[in-house]
Amino acid sequence: MQDFTLHPRLVADTAFVTDWMLSRVLLMDDMRYPWVILVPRRPHLVELFDLTKPDRALLVEEIARAAQCLKTTSGATKINVGALGNQVPQLHVHVVARQDGDTAWPGPVWGHSPRVPYQAAARNAWIARFLNSS
Amino acid sequence: MQDFTLHPRLVADTAFVTDWMLSRVLLMDDMRYPWVILVPRRPHLVELFDLTKPDRALLVEEIARAAQCLKTTSGATKINVGALGNQVPQLHVHVVARQDGDTAWPGPVWGHSPRVPYQAAARNAWIARFLNSS
Repeated sequence: MQDFTLHPRLVADTAFVTDWMLSRVLLMDDMRYPWVILVPRRPHLVELFDLTKPDRALLVEEIARAAQCLKTTSGATKINVGALGNQVPQLHVHVVARQDGDTAWPGPVWGHSPRVPYQAAARNAWIARFLNSS
Repeated sequence: MQDFTLHPRLVADTAFVTDWMLSRVLLMDDMRYPWVILVPRRPHLVELFDLTKPDRALLVEEIARAAQCLKTTSGATKINVGALGNQVPQLHVHVVARQDGDTAWPGPVWGHSPRVPYQAAARNAWIARFLNSS
């Protein structure tokens, strides 16, 4: 995995949470939504079909794990999962806990409005809670 | 799979393409984007973690297969994959071929603007091409 580097936009918009078997787990720095991003730690990935089949099986398990954790910790109405990459080509998967009535509801969070960063203490508390429940 | 029924909104917005091992494959009836929707043919699914692990592995392979086919047939800039479900709770996965400069670019297609239906002949031709290349 030595060639894996994170796209600068992902570095700028997120905080490191942990590394799972395949993916780096990032917290999107937007306090309006519990929102993690999974980035498979392999070089040169753009589309889902650039992964090997075993890595795809790992990725979908990690997406489900993140979704279950967000659902449990946030009591979300619905988990949204998306891999877009129109602006950041490096393969990354958003897993977002949505609440009926949140800022972008029922539309997608992507492209809706500028993010609202956490204060440091709240961000650290969020990360600790996620790690304890995933 | 006898309890599988398609949500009325999915029936209204799409055309049947085929059944793969796990998923019903639907064409979103919006001529602006090559866009398929995969619906796992199991009853009572809402979230990805409601599927069994073997079904999740199947689903991610079917998503990759649809994405590869759309990429090949459309020459898309980027494939967008999304499972939202804020308005249609039945688990379904969008696989959309995006072009730099399309109507919603670089934002998401979901919630952007009302769909523009195909004419019947064009829709049938699209389905035939997809079946031939997937």
